Amino acid sequence: MAGNSFGDFFRVTTFGESHGVAIGGVIDGCPAGLPLDVAAVQAALDRRRPGQSELTTQRKESDRVEFLSGLFEGVTTGTPIAFLLRNEDARSQDYEAMKAAYRPSHADFTYDVRFGRRDPRGGGRASARETAARVVAGAVADQILSRAGIAVSAYVERVGDVAWEAEPAFVPRAEVDAYAVRCPDGPTAERMNARIAEVARAGDSIGGALVVVAQGVPAGWGAPVFDKLQARIAAALWSLPAVKFMEIGSGIAGTYATGSAHNDAFIPSPSGGIATATNRSGGIQGGISNGMPIVVRLGFKPTATIQHAQATVSPDGVPTELAARGRHDPCVLPRAVPIAESMLSLVLADAWLAPPARLDQLHP
Amino acid sequence: MAGNSFGDFFRVTTFGESHGVAIGGVIDGCPAGLPLDVAAVQAALDRRRPGQSELTTQRKESDRVEFLSGLFEGVTTGTPIAFLLRNEDARSQDYEAMKAAYRPSHADFTYDVRFGRRDPRGGGRASARETAARVVAGAVADQILSRAGIAVSAYVERVGDVAWEAEPAFVPRAEVDAYAVRCPDGPTAERMNARIAEVARAGDSIGGALVVVAQGVPAGWGAPVFDKLQARIAAALWSLPAVKFMEIGSGIAGTYATGSAHNDAFIPSPSGGIATATNRSGGIQGGISNGMPIVVRLGFKPTATIQHAQATVSPDGVPTELAARGRHDPCVLPRAVPIAESMLSLVLADAWLAPPARLDQLHP
Amino acid sequence: MAGNSFGDFFRVTTFGESHGVAIGGVIDGCPAGLPLDVAAVQAALDRRRPGQSELTTQRKESDRVEFLSGLFEGVTTGTPIAFLLRNEDARSQDYEAMKAAYRPSHADFTYDVRFGRRDPRGGGRASARETAARVVAGAVADQILSRAGIAVSAYVERVGDVAWEAEPAFVPRAEVDAYAVRCPDGPTAERMNARIAEVARAGDSIGGALVVVAQGVPAGWGAPVFDKLQARIAAALWSLPAVKFMEIGSGIAGTYATGSAHNDAFIPSPSGGIATATNRSGGIQGGISNGMPIVVRLGFKPTATIQHAQATVSPDGVPTELAARGRHDPCVLPRAVPIAESMLSLVLADAWLAPPARLDQLHP
Amino acid sequence: MAGNSFGDFFRVTTFGESHGVAIGGVIDGCPAGLPLDVAAVQAALDRRRPGQSELTTQRKESDRVEFLSGLFEGVTTGTPIAFLLRNEDARSQDYEAMKAAYRPSHADFTYDVRFGRRDPRGGGRASARETAARVVAGAVADQILSRAGIAVSAYVERVGDVAWEAEPAFVPRAEVDAYAVRCPDGPTAERMNARIAEVARAGDSIGGALVVVAQGVPAGWGAPVFDKLQARIAAALWSLPAVKFMEIGSGIAGTYATGSAHNDAFIPSPSGGIATATNRSGGIQGGISNGMPIVVRLGFKPTATIQHAQATVSPDGVPTELAARGRHDPCVLPRAVPIAESMLSLVLADAWLAPPARLDQLHP
Repeated sequence: MAGNSFGDFFRVTTFGESHGVAIGGVIDGCPAGLPLDVAAVQAALDRRRPGQSELTTQRKESDRVEFLSGLFEGVTTGTPIAFLLRNEDARSQDYEAMKAAYRPSHADFTYDVRFGRRDPRGGGRASARETAARVVAGAVADQILSRAGIAVSAYVERVGDVAWEAEPAFVPRAEVDAYAVRCPDGPTAERMNARIAEVARAGDSIGGALVVVAQGVPAGWGAPVFDKLQARIAAALWSLPAVKFMEIGSGIAGTYATGSAHNDAFIPSPSGGIATATNRSGGIQGGISNGMPIVVRLGFKPTATIQHAQATVSPDGVPTELAARGRHDPCVLPRAVPIAESMLSLVLADAWLAPPARLDQLHP
Repeated sequence: MAGNSFGDFFRVTTFGESHGVAIGGVIDGCPAGLPLDVAAVQAALDRRRPGQSELTTQRKESDRVEFLSGLFEGVTTGTPIAFLLRNEDARSQDYEAMKAAYRPSHADFTYDVRFGRRDPRGGGRASARETAARVVAGAVADQILSRAGIAVSAYVERVGDVAWEAEPAFVPRAEVDAYAVRCPDGPTAERMNARIAEVARAGDSIGGALVVVAQGVPAGWGAPVFDKLQARIAAALWSLPAVKFMEIGSGIAGTYATGSAHNDAFIPSPSGGIATATNRSGGIQGGISNGMPIVVRLGFKPTATIQHAQATVSPDGVPTELAARGRHDPCVLPRAVPIAESMLSLVLADAWLAPPARLDQLHP
Repeated sequence: MAGNSFGDFFRVTTFGESHGVAIGGVIDGCPAGLPLDVAAVQAALDRRRPGQSELTTQRKESDRVEFLSGLFEGVTTGTPIAFLLRNEDARSQDYEAMKAAYRPSHADFTYDVRFGRRDPRGGGRASARETAARVVAGAVADQILSRAGIAVSAYVERVGDVAWEAEPAFVPRAEVDAYAVRCPDGPTAERMNARIAEVARAGDSIGGALVVVAQGVPAGWGAPVFDKLQARIAAALWSLPAVKFMEIGSGIAGTYATGSAHNDAFIPSPSGGIATATNRSGGIQGGISNGMPIVVRLGFKPTATIQHAQATVSPDGVPTELAARGRHDPCVLPRAVPIAESMLSLVLADAWLAPPARLDQLHP
Repeated sequence: MAGNSFGDFFRVTTFGESHGVAIGGVIDGCPAGLPLDVAAVQAALDRRRPGQSELTTQRKESDRVEFLSGLFEGVTTGTPIAFLLRNEDARSQDYEAMKAAYRPSHADFTYDVRFGRRDPRGGGRASARETAARVVAGAVADQILSRAGIAVSAYVERVGDVAWEAEPAFVPRAEVDAYAVRCPDGPTAERMNARIAEVARAGDSIGGALVVVAQGVPAGWGAPVFDKLQARIAAALWSLPAVKFMEIGSGIAGTYATGSAHNDAFIPSPSGGIATATNRSGGIQGGISNGMPIVVRLGFKPTATIQHAQATVSPDGVPTELAARGRHDPCVLPRAVPIAESMLSLVLADAWLAPPARLDQLHP
């Protein structure tokens, strides 16, 4: 209820503050029998780590994941998989000044109202550092999903108004990672780099959008009403910090269309089953996957922390001014890629583990 | 798990198929001591009812809500509130033809995959008729929320490309309902009417967007991580049929901005506490309400049912053609208004009932 | 959270007050494809119905179950199964006098503290009538379980100090129902009848114990820690009114034993797998079923409503005297039999539907 | 769903295997503002630790609890409290021999069926070592409950047939801990010691019973139907290893009684409210606390591990013989005392945090 868990069947609970002892999580419900590729989990974490390029904050963290339980001789046993990432580079003094003033568009004020106090060091629990635990869980989920031939990948589609004008599609992670900004189109990536460098020089930040796609999801996953697959995806992705919009399939464009132009005609699938000629549904119909790629677009606001002086108030409501000095990304999009992927993977692992809905699929 | 319940504390479970015996629901967790205004609930239902104008389907249903439990002498007792709406005008023969072909962009195919069968009459459980039960629950939630001075209201902002170009804001329901299309701007409403009439004449349908706003929500509701208030809102609104995009606060526009232009400066509130000078955050920061209005935009695809012949396949995958003959709205937006309001009200009632997060707020 | 639902996967939510409009429930998660035998459900309800013999209250209720949803052409569709039992013989005037005084060992006082009010008619929500909805759900669960060869049956083992001295074992329901008191041993049943008649004549009531057994449960159902199968069974059975003790397997006797006398030796099963030579574990080891019969003993206190004058207080705490005049069973045990069976069936259906815990048992 | 979490509001998730890297847990939902007394938590753990007397296993573990998150300057922040206990004295070789044979009345066989594998070292997840994490969580809960004047305490009432013949009542922990066997009656404690020494010398084990009491619980906690307070207590206590029976209030004796002898008369409370003259209800009526002490009796089987040769089978079902060589308590009762207390405390903390059931108790 306090909201630090996600998923019903492949359920991850995260903990930890940015500058506390450690962050980490517990995965409950991972099936037994998975030889866990720990190096692949570490590689996933490395994709999220700050300090990878000049585009991101220079905080240094080795972020080595330590698994504490749930594995025997390297194979999952079906019991909870707990993991830790010790915090290392916690220069709390950077943040002392901010105690006296609520950072605009941050969680300082609302945490104080809800909890009566907060850990002010590095944003505490509200820090994006919390998402590292999600990436560990997502990387474990990916290893489950790959058994079903499912792959999840995201890329940066737009930084500010610099956009890659391409139909959303699945792009393998390796192709995405070929560019630090994680837009797989070279010329656009360069323009994004320039845009980010420009706002960084100005001590400012910039927003943008990413596309995340799951391919290989079979038809029949999800549920009809409140737990529609898109509702689960929305719950997952809207739990990420800084999200401002989300689209599925045809998205906004689809809402301008007429039905005759928008409907996805069913066709015999080349591979034998049933497919749709177009994918404006984004892979989901009536809350249930239809076998086509699941296509989601997700937009993030500009990082709230900037190097400008900003008007704000102190905790007792007195107007004051604040100039941020913390280390923050001028644009969250590149690092949001592995995080968004992780959340989609968690949703899909959960959907796969859901009990069968047909009596003939139960077996004693 | 099967996904027919929403909410943790003010929890509604809905049931029923479009052309079955009845639809209805059970509200578990409604606090005791509310003198339930049943007429107000019925009035809320009437706002959703089809056949109210030429903009909507002509299915005739009186949709009288019957309460079965949870009330004693008209006051809630804290026990489950069950309610029923008998189905009356269920002309199943209208739909017989559709059994032989999957309707494009409907749930026919995916239900068959997941469940191995479905109730084909009127869309069965996938019919938007299910949302009538949500409106009943939302109307009860509204009566709780009004105790805290909270009001939720929505209006149609756009039909196809006919948009009301106004900053999203709270508009009282009475002002919205003054226009059948539920856009509170007269000239725009007329153009919307014309657009809908045009597509209806063409046997087609059209999408659009609405804005839903909650005003009066105090600061401090919500949770920091997976159950961020916006994640709960997203889960709620994305569980509605036909949703294609959602925005909060500055939405898409905000993702084009720089941080210096986007941040909401804190200011002393005229009413004594702390407010923000702008509301690009949409009333939520760090997953927790900040006392400003909660502002959400939600987009819907064009109704999938159209009067055109469409290419599709039969359940065994053989190409065929389908021409819809059911009764359907050419545009779902006007009737989506009370449904979206209901879902936001359910989220807020749930957030209000959540246990306090501060030790000093517990009392034996 | 308000606690009117049971089960995670085969989830039943009940509603209704003893003398309100109706009681009923919603089953969410029943797999699609079950041709529901409604007559069997009605027969199960009839086993619980009052007025079946002089042993039980003479309240007349036809208790016809009406199914509202979740069925198409008599077969479950995987959507919620809602059902109703209209209340008929609600002579509320019988209970008016009790409003002025808290009935000893009833829920009047505690409901008032928790909810600030209650429906006083016939005990309202606290009436054992609520369990009729559980029996409907349990009867549906039974039809699922029979697919796996599982049968659940209970019998009255003891009324006051009149006990059937036999090793707990599975007794088919038909053999149990051959006796109104539901003890399948003729001579003991007669002595139980005499004992109940005696207390009834004295305007008093009497407690006792029943044994409920599930046979055919395969090994491997349940979970290791907080959701041990016995913990789920305990949660289910202790949610019944008037329960005072519960034992599994060797029960109390087992706690007097030494390990060398108590351990269940593993042996090759005659049917090919692994069995235990004895069943002191009661069919569960480490929270997971081991393939042996699940054996539970459950004890109920004497009915709180008696025809004697009793000392009590009024709602404002003033001492007063109360003489019950309602219609109540002098001994709940005979009617507790189908109710306890239902709860065990609900637990088992839920356990069967739980996601597989082995990667090699998942299938796309 | 995989069952490693307990509680809805004060929710603990445990992880870890007996001989893995560490065991631990995460508490989600602990209110902010509690200055956590870490020494008191450690002291609670020390009460559970093995090797405290000759009555318990000689495994040496310092069991120092490390808190990883959820605290700032020693005060809870309302975010998840994660904690660790590193495993130290893990002599896995002791258990190697047991891999070849299923230990009678252990979880070896059932884990293998459910998960297809298990961590055989020291019982893995099935080891009672898992309960150490419960004790940490329970000790945190105790610090919350003490704010409401609630204290939970347990004592050993019986070892085999050596029983303290006293009416169950609250005994302060210090008085209980004055005796290693945790029976607060000196002469009985000596006889219990002798009984345990006797079975230990014989390489055998013995069962028994404890009484756990909560005093100070106000009236009005709990819920009417499936989440009756006793159902939550039962779920909690039956999740402990080796439990064979549970009683509340008058327990078994109450089921032999007549209603006129068993009912608890209401009386004006000396302290101003309403009390009962007797407490056969065990502090709960209609699923809701009535302000009287909550009194539960819980029985445990003899430890399954004994030093005798036992008949069993190998994992492939071939008959074989097994002689245990691990370190185990000949009687679990003394160490079960803090564990049972912890589970009851977790239930009560959860009940306290549950949302109010009265509209007039909500506040914006």
